[in-house]
Amino acid sequence: MSKNDISRRTFNALILAAGGSLAVGSAHADQAEPEKAEARPTRVTILLYPGTTVLDWIGPYEALHRVDGVEVVLAGKTTDLMKSDSGIVEYKANVPLSEIDYTDVLIVPGGAKEMMTAANDPEIADWIKAIDETSQYTVGICTGALFLAHVGLLEGRRATTYWKFTPMLAGGGAIYEDARWVRDGKYWTSAGVSAGIDLTLALIADLYDDETAMKAQLGIEYDPAPPFNAGSVSTAPQSVVDALGGAVENPVGAN
Amino acid sequence: MSKNDISRRTFNALILAAGGSLAVGSAHADQAEPEKAEARPTRVTILLYPGTTVLDWIGPYEALHRVDGVEVVLAGKTTDLMKSDSGIVEYKANVPLSEIDYTDVLIVPGGAKEMMTAANDPEIADWIKAIDETSQYTVGICTGALFLAHVGLLEGRRATTYWKFTPMLAGGGAIYEDARWVRDGKYWTSAGVSAGIDLTLALIADLYDDETAMKAQLGIEYDPAPPFNAGSVSTAPQSVVDALGGAVENPVGAN
Repeated sequence: MSKNDISRRTFNALILAAGGSLAVGSAHADQAEPEKAEARPTRVTILLYPGTTVLDWIGPYEALHRVDGVEVVLAGKTTDLMKSDSGIVEYKANVPLSEIDYTDVLIVPGGAKEMMTAANDPEIADWIKAIDETSQYTVGICTGALFLAHVGLLEGRRATTYWKFTPMLAGGGAIYEDARWVRDGKYWTSAGVSAGIDLTLALIADLYDDETAMKAQLGIEYDPAPPFNAGSVSTAPQSVVDALGGAVENPVGAN
Repeated sequence: MSKNDISRRTFNALILAAGGSLAVGSAHADQAEPEKAEARPTRVTILLYPGTTVLDWIGPYEALHRVDGVEVVLAGKTTDLMKSDSGIVEYKANVPLSEIDYTDVLIVPGGAKEMMTAANDPEIADWIKAIDETSQYTVGICTGALFLAHVGLLEGRRATTYWKFTPMLAGGGAIYEDARWVRDGKYWTSAGVSAGIDLTLALIADLYDDETAMKAQLGIEYDPAPPFNAGSVSTAPQSVVDALGGAVENPVGAN
């Protein structure tokens, strides 16, 4: 195993050369400025509930936690373990809703059936409505937009959501717009799952500046190169759309 | 509140119209074929350890768990809660390494400093080497490629990793290639963090067919539209690269 041992020593030397750290590109890195009185961090609160689609919130989290001065709070009704929509990933909130009385940015991810259980829970719905009164941005990712619509926050507002359920926005009084993300005042909504990453980079630019957003983008090396052009209902082959059950019919004629 | 009540009733009717489910596009949907004897599922094992970069594995997970016939296993030394590289997200494995003796696909995500603790843990390193002997694909996402190099699996192979640490692949005997993802035989590696999504869609196409990969892509509505073109070290402004501390120097002259 001597060959492997040499390789290992070289490898460790390289790690030392990298500053002893494998920290993946953070905008916190290499702070050369002298210490100054800390401003209050920008609080980003992500609402977690059982049955979320994990990428809906991990995409935004991964970009946002790299931004200097951002504090990401994972909020939940309790801090017990919860299961994702697939049942495979387990996660937990760090702070119970009852301990959070303001946020700068509120992010509500989407989820499967259980999302409606959360949206119909008065404790969660009341918390969202109260915290929304303190926010600079209230964001729905994927079917999280339907969550916001359901609690009455998108009444009369332009919004988008996961391609399969866009007509359902009308049920919450919102006006569907076909876009990767939509902003109407402080209410920002995104298309499905992975679209939260795009929305989040735009939001960081709005909250800070383009440079800060680009640092987060390079931090997660977000230079997408999908091997197929099937990521939207308008570009995917019809057979692929049909295999996923197509978009829901719109029983009330709105779109 | 009567207006909101009406909106809520309409909304619930729409959910019923959607088949009573808010399941976000799964390739499992609408199975019209008659039941047949179940083939063994394709097992995808994701190695979790303390300090992972969560998007590294949530991206692949989110695409893969939607594929009919795929079983995603989250594997860890224990099934205790672990913290991510940021310390913010907590997660856990579902199955201890000791109970996993084969996999079809092994995915090793990247992470920060603690990744090297995991890579230097003989129990984990020995498990990876043993399980690699059973795999059809062994995948390193982001600095997960350095993990694979460190345990000796990329000796003489072409590979890529997070932009900041590409010279470090040489320390594990690998040959760096500048690409979003690289395949050398069964060893696939990707660039940083978000690149795992691109690699995974290509891997699903290789494992099944293009249609299956496109279903997973539409399932996560992966139609990326980053608001900036700063996701790679070659497209980001130099000020952005510098702010993240630049790429590591290469002390052994390899690239």
